[in-house]
Amino acid sequence: MCLCHDDDPYKHYQNELVAARLLIPSGVRGVFARSGTFENVIVQFENLVGRETRAMNAEVLRFPPVFNRAHYTRLDHLYNFPDLMGSVHSFMGKDAEHLELIRKFEAGEKWTDDLQPTEVMLAPAACYPLYPTASGSTLPDTGRLIDLQSYVFRHEPSDDPARMQTFRMREFVRLGTPEQALAHRDGWIDRASGILRSLGLDVVPVVANDPFFGRGGRVMKATQREQNLKYELVVPIVSEEKPTAITSCNCHLDHFGSVFDIKTANGEVAHSACMGFGLERIALALFKHHGLDVAKWPASVRQQLQLDAA
Amino acid sequence: MCLCHDDDPYKHYQNELVAARLLIPSGVRGVFARSGTFENVIVQFENLVGRETRAMNAEVLRFPPVFNRAHYTRLDHLYNFPDLMGSVHSFMGKDAEHLELIRKFEAGEKWTDDLQPTEVMLAPAACYPLYPTASGSTLPDTGRLIDLQSYVFRHEPSDDPARMQTFRMREFVRLGTPEQALAHRDGWIDRASGILRSLGLDVVPVVANDPFFGRGGRVMKATQREQNLKYELVVPIVSEEKPTAITSCNCHLDHFGSVFDIKTANGEVAHSACMGFGLERIALALFKHHGLDVAKWPASVRQQLQLDAA
Repeated sequence: MCLCHDDDPYKHYQNELVAARLLIPSGVRGVFARSGTFENVIVQFENLVGRETRAMNAEVLRFPPVFNRAHYTRLDHLYNFPDLMGSVHSFMGKDAEHLELIRKFEAGEKWTDDLQPTEVMLAPAACYPLYPTASGSTLPDTGRLIDLQSYVFRHEPSDDPARMQTFRMREFVRLGTPEQALAHRDGWIDRASGILRSLGLDVVPVVANDPFFGRGGRVMKATQREQNLKYELVVPIVSEEKPTAITSCNCHLDHFGSVFDIKTANGEVAHSACMGFGLERIALALFKHHGLDVAKWPASVRQQLQLDAA
Repeated sequence: MCLCHDDDPYKHYQNELVAARLLIPSGVRGVFARSGTFENVIVQFENLVGRETRAMNAEVLRFPPVFNRAHYTRLDHLYNFPDLMGSVHSFMGKDAEHLELIRKFEAGEKWTDDLQPTEVMLAPAACYPLYPTASGSTLPDTGRLIDLQSYVFRHEPSDDPARMQTFRMREFVRLGTPEQALAHRDGWIDRASGILRSLGLDVVPVVANDPFFGRGGRVMKATQREQNLKYELVVPIVSEEKPTAITSCNCHLDHFGSVFDIKTANGEVAHSACMGFGLERIALALFKHHGLDVAKWPASVRQQLQLDAA
């Protein structure tokens, strides 16, 4: 029985999550705090993935939510997803300019015009900040495998709890030869499907359909689909007809290797591929499929996530 | 023996951390990725604090790095620390405006002026986003104890590795009566000292000296010192003469209760106090005191942090 009287199924699920105190609203669409219970599902999912991947000897790197603006502008995000960007601005004046800022603020004028762009943007993807750190390097024969987790930001206010403006991605990135990159992507489509199915999420791989911006974006969308480079594992969360991508497996060819001058052992431009788990979306899928009370989740799922151990 | 030839002791320590691959530079001062080893020290420190506090039955809440702009403007950060703020801006135009944005970008003009402020700011403190979620509420007799951890942003580019622009705070916040808030702060000064001393960090409590902005800020600084509301636990990291605050214990009186209308059980305006652990700074203090090779840390410290268990 639902008391929220909301016809929109996305808002309806959001209301349920808020009523169960799993998500705590911030007053901004798509920005929430999470409860300890919600967070523990993510921690245990990450531990599960970590146990599966420990044998792969990935290098662990953790990037903060902000990202060098100079590196951002070397990518094509400004062309393809300008509407999703997060540019960080601050006040850089002295006392006199501060008085003027306060005056504008108190008069209800637009005080933010007085701010200046800082050296950073919010990271739009967990792996973007990685490639510049490998700039000018030559990879070992085996390539590199990097384990990342960070917050990403996408400015797309929405009532769909699975479309947050700020969320975390756990990513495994392969830098290496074209064969190594492709094998990484394809191997992970299977491996990630297995992990998610073991949690009762019957994911299906589909070719990705990214929200490229504007008129030019329609060409990009068609190209992306033709190239079959990026797959997503989707599962229904709120809607059976429009299942939600909870992971993405993307081969970038030599895009990042070329922009940031990363070479393979034999001197070719490095290729890259990434496998990204959308952590909040995975938790939201689990709560939708197994119910809002973690104690009542199927024993097999509780065991896989070691929810009884803590 | 040091090969970095850097006279600045802050840069020198930074160079050592980078050479040891504990921190990975981003090209922006004060923005780093952390290695798995660095991160594990933080994870285990958080586990240690968590074991100490489990009996207190704190509510766990985890906020993202961004914060409702409307709530931000109800605080006095804009007055006191405008130079540290992070205001998140994005592109909100259509195709025509996008073409102009790209033209400016490609011509080397200031494309960021075409962006608009979003609904969010970067959070300047881990506990700021908490108070609005309690707005309009009446606390139970015992008050509330909340366990927070989040990224905060402060725009203060620096070569001191302990002055990052983006870092994580683990905070314990008490909402309650004046007595409950003060007891929280005072109890935590002792408790946090004990935890940090058990790790070989001989911290000392000092009255805080926050970097209030500009001419008006000098008055605020004097007031802060007179009121004795905020203490920091300091320990030398790079400099013996200028030890670094690695935790802060702050009583806010009824400031947040008043701004966000939070009441105690008997109808008074709630008081609040917070205890914040600067997680990156604590790791940096441990690496400075015990060396860059975690395997060689004193057995007692390794045992306290359960570094052998993993």
